Amino acid sequence: MTTRSHCQALDEQDPLAPLRRQFALPEGVIYLDGNSLGARPVKALARAQAVIAEEWGNGLIRSWNSAGWADLSQRLGNRLAPLIGAGDGEVVITDTTSINLFKVLSAALSVQRQRQPNRKVIVSEASNFPTDLYIAEGLAELLQQGYSLRLVNSPDELPGAIDQDVAVVMLTHVNYKTGYMYDMQALTALSHECGALGIWDLAHSAGAVPIDLHQAGADYAIGCTYKYLNGGPGSQAFVWVNPALVDVVRQPLSGWFGHTRQFAMESTYAPSAGIARYLCGTQPITSLAMVECGLEIFAQTDMASLRSKSLALTDLFIALVEARCAAHELVLITPREHARRGSHVSFEHPEGYAVIQALIARGVIGDYREPRIMRFGFTPLYTSFTEVFDAVEILGEILDNRTWDQAQFKVRNSVT
Amino acid sequence: MTTRSHCQALDEQDPLAPLRRQFALPEGVIYLDGNSLGARPVKALARAQAVIAEEWGNGLIRSWNSAGWADLSQRLGNRLAPLIGAGDGEVVITDTTSINLFKVLSAALSVQRQRQPNRKVIVSEASNFPTDLYIAEGLAELLQQGYSLRLVNSPDELPGAIDQDVAVVMLTHVNYKTGYMYDMQALTALSHECGALGIWDLAHSAGAVPIDLHQAGADYAIGCTYKYLNGGPGSQAFVWVNPALVDVVRQPLSGWFGHTRQFAMESTYAPSAGIARYLCGTQPITSLAMVECGLEIFAQTDMASLRSKSLALTDLFIALVEARCAAHELVLITPREHARRGSHVSFEHPEGYAVIQALIARGVIGDYREPRIMRFGFTPLYTSFTEVFDAVEILGEILDNRTWDQAQFKVRNSVT
Repeated sequence: MTTRSHCQALDEQDPLAPLRRQFALPEGVIYLDGNSLGARPVKALARAQAVIAEEWGNGLIRSWNSAGWADLSQRLGNRLAPLIGAGDGEVVITDTTSINLFKVLSAALSVQRQRQPNRKVIVSEASNFPTDLYIAEGLAELLQQGYSLRLVNSPDELPGAIDQDVAVVMLTHVNYKTGYMYDMQALTALSHECGALGIWDLAHSAGAVPIDLHQAGADYAIGCTYKYLNGGPGSQAFVWVNPALVDVVRQPLSGWFGHTRQFAMESTYAPSAGIARYLCGTQPITSLAMVECGLEIFAQTDMASLRSKSLALTDLFIALVEARCAAHELVLITPREHARRGSHVSFEHPEGYAVIQALIARGVIGDYREPRIMRFGFTPLYTSFTEVFDAVEILGEILDNRTWDQAQFKVRNSVT
Repeated sequence: MTTRSHCQALDEQDPLAPLRRQFALPEGVIYLDGNSLGARPVKALARAQAVIAEEWGNGLIRSWNSAGWADLSQRLGNRLAPLIGAGDGEVVITDTTSINLFKVLSAALSVQRQRQPNRKVIVSEASNFPTDLYIAEGLAELLQQGYSLRLVNSPDELPGAIDQDVAVVMLTHVNYKTGYMYDMQALTALSHECGALGIWDLAHSAGAVPIDLHQAGADYAIGCTYKYLNGGPGSQAFVWVNPALVDVVRQPLSGWFGHTRQFAMESTYAPSAGIARYLCGTQPITSLAMVECGLEIFAQTDMASLRSKSLALTDLFIALVEARCAAHELVLITPREHARRGSHVSFEHPEGYAVIQALIARGVIGDYREPRIMRFGFTPLYTSFTEVFDAVEILGEILDNRTWDQAQFKVRNSVT
């Protein structure tokens, strides 16, 4: 079994290790939940202070121009674009992932109504992140045009599910439970061969794994900035549309920020060219501005280096857990194959909820997802190899001592 | 004409004057644009610092529970509710005004599909705030069920426009251009008599004028927190639905925060009871948290006191402008009648844009709206009578000297 001193040596050789100093992480915590809420960039506090005290307090309404609030969604989108293989002017950061999914799914169905109006099926996975399925359900019910969801139970079932009835294939690139990662290029090709359009939810991919939307030939993508991108709690989501599709239809959440002449105050809508038509209403600026601080850290490295360390961290975690905790009922549900693995690792345990609570009490923060899933995120910008070692040792002690069997760890509350 | 010393005396007698100290206003500025972006509560900076440094930085993912992020939209909604005559548990603060309008308009049409499916007309005003019209247009186009907008050109035309074809009457309570305020109770009664449901956009009303949604018998309301409520740039919007209607249908932006068992991670949607079903995705928390700071100041007074001062301020402004600037081509487009006036005053001037720029250069911040409209907002929490006097004097000097006729004031940029 790998020793702690070997992990310390890995940290000493890690070219990304200095980046950790750009995050404000609390003492006494091993944070393995950056897949749910990324850690705070040190600079985020000063950035917010400047927005609040200077831009809002002193600049007041003038800051829409003087502080660049008016096109902040576009400028931040341009900073994010290289991380997902998108071009300049193709991404905006705005609204929530759920809202952005509604926009692109509406748009994709609208394109298909023009091209192949008999296609009424939206394919997805039963284990997709629930809000994606709820949004599709809400849109289908709203439209009352016979749309339905066809949910597969595993990635293997997808090829059989994509047939001539399918309008859109809507998938999350890295599954939030298992960490399974789809082959974006292959799935996109499969969808296109069958005449379907594809939507990728990159919530667990952006900033976690290399993505090349153009190379994959993707149609639509949305995702989250508050996980691996470290944008801050609930920070705005992003949306990308292939330039070949973006001007074909409007999306229905057509608010004034998407109008081509926003301040002409016309009474009828005329969509902006390009991705700006995916903007809708006025954005919460303080939260949006902090997204830049996370992106500035990514600009100091590249996704290939991050991926290399991410795989080393998840390989190490799996190996250590399987060695140190071999006596316990842990079942790995994350793929061992690198090409199919995102940047988090999940184990099932019959008492997964209570074990996670016991870990948090010891300062190791992972999270729990129904049913029985203990989820651990590895964020190469700030997670060290030694932390992985220490986390597994603490997990081993909790399992050996059945610490989780204490009543306080079994009380469920709403959000973890 | 009222003298400056009389205005100073009014300030000395003003029981609301001490509240101004709770706002961080820049030196040398007379801010008459709180109807567009409210001023910064002093406490907002410390509140944001606590969210960023402590709740995000140290609490990390745990803050969804420990810092109360999970139900922040509901808690803030409860604080806002008394300002609009809504009950506890009836309001949430979330998303944008545009998005919330999409939710309630979809819901209202869905209710009417159940009750009176042949009604296909949405009545509004041509001079309604454009995003409201764009959202209705986007929804009608999405639905492809024959819905259309019927726009009146003045409030007088409304009674004639509300007939048996009308599903929904969608109005902004206080017009963003003219400051005209509808009689909410009378219009609601008119709509109901005709079988239509009503939606009120309270963007220019909440925190500006007394509102009693229950007394008015209103059906749906949405609005903005970044104007008179001083929530911060782009801070989240609110949504209220009459309890008799809230559980009748789901709204189509059915994201995971609206699910009745959010963390059960079910693959099908089951809406929460009550207004929580109008939640959708994860909210930008830092911006949302600051909304509380503005609401805390409102809790120290009441809307009747604010209304009384608001009318005194707007009366004074109108009287002073008409006296001091009588020689110039200013046309008042705001109602003189108190019952029909909101909390801003608009004058048309052929060179309105350039005059506003010249005013801003002198430290008097109002704003401009197409066509020719100079708009001045009066926010009784922090605007003084002496400021009104000084602003009019500066306006008079600019008009007398044709200062606005300099090239620099005529260059248009995008956002004012």
